[in-house]
Amino acid sequence: MAQRYVRVQNQEGQIYYGLLQLSLEVQLLDAPPWLQGQTTDLTLFTDSYQILAPCAPSKIVAVGKNYADHAAEMKSDVPTEPLIFIKPATTIIASEAEILYPAQSQRVDYEGELALVIGDRASNCTLEEAQTKIWGYTIANDVTARDLQSKDGQWTRAKGFDTFCPLGPWIVRELNPGARLQTFLNDDPKPVQSACIDQMVFSPDFLVSYISQVMTLLPGDVVLTGTPVGVGALHLGDKVRVEIEGIGRLENVVVAR
Amino acid sequence: MAQRYVRVQNQEGQIYYGLLQLSLEVQLLDAPPWLQGQTTDLTLFTDSYQILAPCAPSKIVAVGKNYADHAAEMKSDVPTEPLIFIKPATTIIASEAEILYPAQSQRVDYEGELALVIGDRASNCTLEEAQTKIWGYTIANDVTARDLQSKDGQWTRAKGFDTFCPLGPWIVRELNPGARLQTFLNDDPKPVQSACIDQMVFSPDFLVSYISQVMTLLPGDVVLTGTPVGVGALHLGDKVRVEIEGIGRLENVVVAR
Repeated sequence: MAQRYVRVQNQEGQIYYGLLQLSLEVQLLDAPPWLQGQTTDLTLFTDSYQILAPCAPSKIVAVGKNYADHAAEMKSDVPTEPLIFIKPATTIIASEAEILYPAQSQRVDYEGELALVIGDRASNCTLEEAQTKIWGYTIANDVTARDLQSKDGQWTRAKGFDTFCPLGPWIVRELNPGARLQTFLNDDPKPVQSACIDQMVFSPDFLVSYISQVMTLLPGDVVLTGTPVGVGALHLGDKVRVEIEGIGRLENVVVAR
Repeated sequence: MAQRYVRVQNQEGQIYYGLLQLSLEVQLLDAPPWLQGQTTDLTLFTDSYQILAPCAPSKIVAVGKNYADHAAEMKSDVPTEPLIFIKPATTIIASEAEILYPAQSQRVDYEGELALVIGDRASNCTLEEAQTKIWGYTIANDVTARDLQSKDGQWTRAKGFDTFCPLGPWIVRELNPGARLQTFLNDDPKPVQSACIDQMVFSPDFLVSYISQVMTLLPGDVVLTGTPVGVGALHLGDKVRVEIEGIGRLENVVVAR
C-alpha cells in the first residue's frame, strides 16, 4: 500500500503532519512533507489523535465542467479553456466531519473530485514544470448549493459555505492515471458517480500550468479537478462517500447548520 | 491625524506590524493590532523599512455592483442581495508596488474601493455584531481584466491575477461615513471616480453580516465593498491612485507582466 500522508491533532490540540502506519499509529514529521518535513521518532498511538484535512491551503482553486458528461448533464458545453473558481479555506473539513446544510439553500449537491496538493511555488509554469509542482493526490467533495449557484451567477456563495469542502482523508504521492472515482450515498452499493479520472477534459498538469499563469500557487495549496456525471442532492442525515482507487475513502454526514 | 497602522519589512526581510509616526518612523507592535498586539520600544527609522500591504488576509471577499451608478454603467441591475466573489491573497500588493498587466488580457480596469479589515472571527453575525467585527479601514484597487470577466462568466480569473489587489497604504480605525472615494489617473487632477462611500447599496456592517452567514471571516481578512461609477482602462505605464478622505492614497504603476 502507498505511503499515506496525514495531518492530525493530538489530545492537547497540537497539530502535526505524519505518516499513517498500517497499525493506524501516526509517525510524526517535523514539518509539512512538501516543505521537506522529516520523520521524527515520535508516534501517536491509535485513538490518541484525530484526523484533520491533510493540508491547510492558502487557497483552493477549483475547475468547473471538466468532464464532458457532467457538462452535458448541466446542459452546458465543455469550456474551451479551464473555468476556474475559488473556494475559501474555511470550507475545508476532514473525513468523518459534518457537512452543515445552510438554511439559505433548498438544494445542496455532492460533487466527488480528485484533489491535487501543490508542493512547490508555481508561477507561469509550462506543462512539464507543472507536473513537478504536484506533490500528491487526495479526495474532495465540492459541495454546492445548486439553487444559489444559478441564482447568483457567481459561484462563490454556492460553493463557499463553511464545511463545503470535505478533503482527505490523506495524501498519496502517486496515482494510476486510470483510477476510478466513485461517489456513494448512504448504504446503497450502487455508486451515484463513477468515472475514470483520465476522462477529464483538462489534465492535472494542464490545470496547474493554466492556473499558474494567472495566480501563484503556494506549497500546500489545493486544486480541485472537477466532478464527473451523476451529481445529485444531499439531504439531512445523508452519508456521502467519495472513493478514488489508490487513495481511499472520504466520508461525511450531512446535518442542519 | 488618525493613528495609521502599517505592516513593514525591515532591511533583513523581517515583517512587523507597527504605528506610522508623523516623523515617518514606525513604532513596532509585537503582534497584529487586531490580535492584541502591543507597542514595543523598537522603532524603524525612515528609509530603513519598506511598506507592505497592511494585513495578510486568509481571504479577500469582494462585492460586485454595490453602487447603483456603477451597476448602471455595467448595464446591470442592482442586486437584491450582495453578490460576493473571492480574490486570492496572491493578488495583494502594497502601495507603490507594480500592477502586472497580463498577456491574456487586452482590457484591464481599475476599480477604487473601500476595504474593511476584520478584527475578530465572524460567523453568523447579526448587523450589530458585524459592526464590532470591523477593526479598521483601508483602500483597495480591485483590478479587473474586463474582457476575461465577460468571457469567463465566473470572475475568478479576471480578478485573480497576481498583483490585482493593491491594498493600503495603512489602516485607520475610524472612518467618516460620508468620506469621499476618488480615483485618479496619471497627473490628471480630475478624478475618474468620485463618490461618497455612503452611496453604497449595502453598508459595511450589512456586508460583513451577510458574508458571515456563508463563510467564517477570520482576523485580518479583508472585505472589498464595491466600486462606484467611472471604471475605465489602465495602460502600460499608467499611474493609478485611489484616495479616500480620512485614510490616504494608494498609488500603483502598471507594467508588463
